[in-house]
Amino acid sequence: MGLFEDTLARIAPVDESRACDIQKRLDNKTKPPGSLGRLEEMAKRICLITGKDAPDLSRKAVFVFAGDHGVADEGVSAYPKVVTAQMVYNFLRGGAGVNVLARHMGADVVVSDIGVDHDFEPVDGLRIVKVARGTKNMAEGPAMTREQAIRAIEVGIGLAGEFAARGYGIFATGEMGIANTTPSSAMAAVFTGLSAGIVTGYGTGISEAAVRHKVSVIEKAIEINSPDPSDGLGVLAKLGGLEIAGIAGVILGAASSRIPVVVDGFISTAGALAACEIAPAAKGYIIAAHRSVEAGHLAILDRLGLRPLLDLDMRLGEGTGAVLAMGIVEAGVKVLREMATFGEAGVESEKIN
Amino acid sequence: MGLFEDTLARIAPVDESRACDIQKRLDNKTKPPGSLGRLEEMAKRICLITGKDAPDLSRKAVFVFAGDHGVADEGVSAYPKVVTAQMVYNFLRGGAGVNVLARHMGADVVVSDIGVDHDFEPVDGLRIVKVARGTKNMAEGPAMTREQAIRAIEVGIGLAGEFAARGYGIFATGEMGIANTTPSSAMAAVFTGLSAGIVTGYGTGISEAAVRHKVSVIEKAIEINSPDPSDGLGVLAKLGGLEIAGIAGVILGAASSRIPVVVDGFISTAGALAACEIAPAAKGYIIAAHRSVEAGHLAILDRLGLRPLLDLDMRLGEGTGAVLAMGIVEAGVKVLREMATFGEAGVESEKIN
Repeated sequence: MGLFEDTLARIAPVDESRACDIQKRLDNKTKPPGSLGRLEEMAKRICLITGKDAPDLSRKAVFVFAGDHGVADEGVSAYPKVVTAQMVYNFLRGGAGVNVLARHMGADVVVSDIGVDHDFEPVDGLRIVKVARGTKNMAEGPAMTREQAIRAIEVGIGLAGEFAARGYGIFATGEMGIANTTPSSAMAAVFTGLSAGIVTGYGTGISEAAVRHKVSVIEKAIEINSPDPSDGLGVLAKLGGLEIAGIAGVILGAASSRIPVVVDGFISTAGALAACEIAPAAKGYIIAAHRSVEAGHLAILDRLGLRPLLDLDMRLGEGTGAVLAMGIVEAGVKVLREMATFGEAGVESEKIN
Repeated sequence: MGLFEDTLARIAPVDESRACDIQKRLDNKTKPPGSLGRLEEMAKRICLITGKDAPDLSRKAVFVFAGDHGVADEGVSAYPKVVTAQMVYNFLRGGAGVNVLARHMGADVVVSDIGVDHDFEPVDGLRIVKVARGTKNMAEGPAMTREQAIRAIEVGIGLAGEFAARGYGIFATGEMGIANTTPSSAMAAVFTGLSAGIVTGYGTGISEAAVRHKVSVIEKAIEINSPDPSDGLGVLAKLGGLEIAGIAGVILGAASSRIPVVVDGFISTAGALAACEIAPAAKGYIIAAHRSVEAGHLAILDRLGLRPLLDLDMRLGEGTGAVLAMGIVEAGVKVLREMATFGEAGVESEKIN
């Protein structure tokens, strides 16, 4: 049994049996019951995911996977393909949005070349785990073989396992890949059953005409590949991307290690959806970071039954929304860990009205 | 001219003339234009408020004002009045929600007894700036005299001035005062013209019957005091609270010193509304932290034309939502300060579609 199958076998549904006990602990803190809203929800979820009473989220990692897309040749993106590699260098120098926000939140950025159409020299901070120099053009055939998809998933599983072993308490997902809203929309359409027109948006900012073209490319890709919606791995291989598969792998690996994983915007949730179609029990380990502006994101969140934490009109990707949301999740856990109880503080807890 | 009038005279509307220049700087960062949404909005706003190109928000303070309310005698709160003083001790020991979240966000908590019905011994970390031992019962007459309201406002102005001089870059407001959603709802009703029934909610968690009683108390208070909605100070004095006036003072002081101020939930925004009714130009210096669960909060935000940053089902007060939101605001400023430009990073900025 390979790493992929072995990981799937180790994913168990989150044990919800301690939920009431944890809520009782929260209700004993010096505040009206429930008054910290979603912070309390996060505290409870992280306790359930990890099986711990006082989870430690001080070590945080955001995994940024970079990969190129053959479908970029169809002119579906606002920017040229070369930007993927250029942005990897930007990540390595610490100048990109995700670097700035990760520093702000105390998270480490882990950059992986999982499929960039560029040969990087070995350099500190870059993991060269290339499965292929980009995917094939899905408008002409499968983006990846099943074997490639599994290898890319296993890259993510490997990273999750490594950082779990190193004591990291929470993960976030991010990506860079010119044209990667196109595969994400295609996967969203197949998994949700919605039409391509509904789940396709402006990406990094293409024109109205370019959106119509993008929809037709996606429709063509779905037609030519005739993916089976019940075959999660098959949909990911045919219509996905190497960085999207890497994200799915991090989620599967996190779930198998009982580590919470904060999923960024549209592309990351497409990876999360693939992971959950492959292993439905992984869903309980996922926290949706934010509501992206991108069309199709809500459809995926709805399918996953996830309510995002933030709504800040963001649509950059890279993991920017996820690292911000990690700060909110950590705040929730600290409420449980650090707030005084009524008894400790000598505060009256009995209601009079 | 006293501190109050002098401060009002020094509040100028935020100079919006640099908005396009700042947006151009943001658009030159390595990301699609506008793709960091409200983080970019925050970066711009803080630059405009401060008049600086690279504002420094590393020093952050949340001002927590504690005060009691005569109207608590009407049985409008879920908890007994003694909790106000008990919670002040909790703040001083660092065990309350606002302490935990302020530590998480790197903000200093500044606790002021501006009107608690309890005599505190002088102790490190507590500012004893008591204007009165609580307000009078507004259902029987004015909660405060105009002079008391001005003195409480001046406490807030003084703190804002002190911390501005000490190099703090951003403020947040918070409060503790059993029964203080009642004056906040009363002020909201008068300033917005909505009925008490619409702007009155469950506070810390009273019963349906207690809410109906609370509405009738507010209606009685408005009738007996017949406040003039165009007299901001008068409404604050008649229907407000000492901690609410302190919050209004911080906002006026912040505006006069060109310091951004993040306003917490329902009670804090009632203080902000009073500040802006007194000095409309103060509005530009305010950032609404979050959408509170409390009825009436949206009515005030609407009146102020503010869109909150977070929506986490919180309703604790103390400044808990405001300190969380300070982290988001600071993230926005760091995007402007720390992200690489296309030129610096060697990333292609020209669109192809």
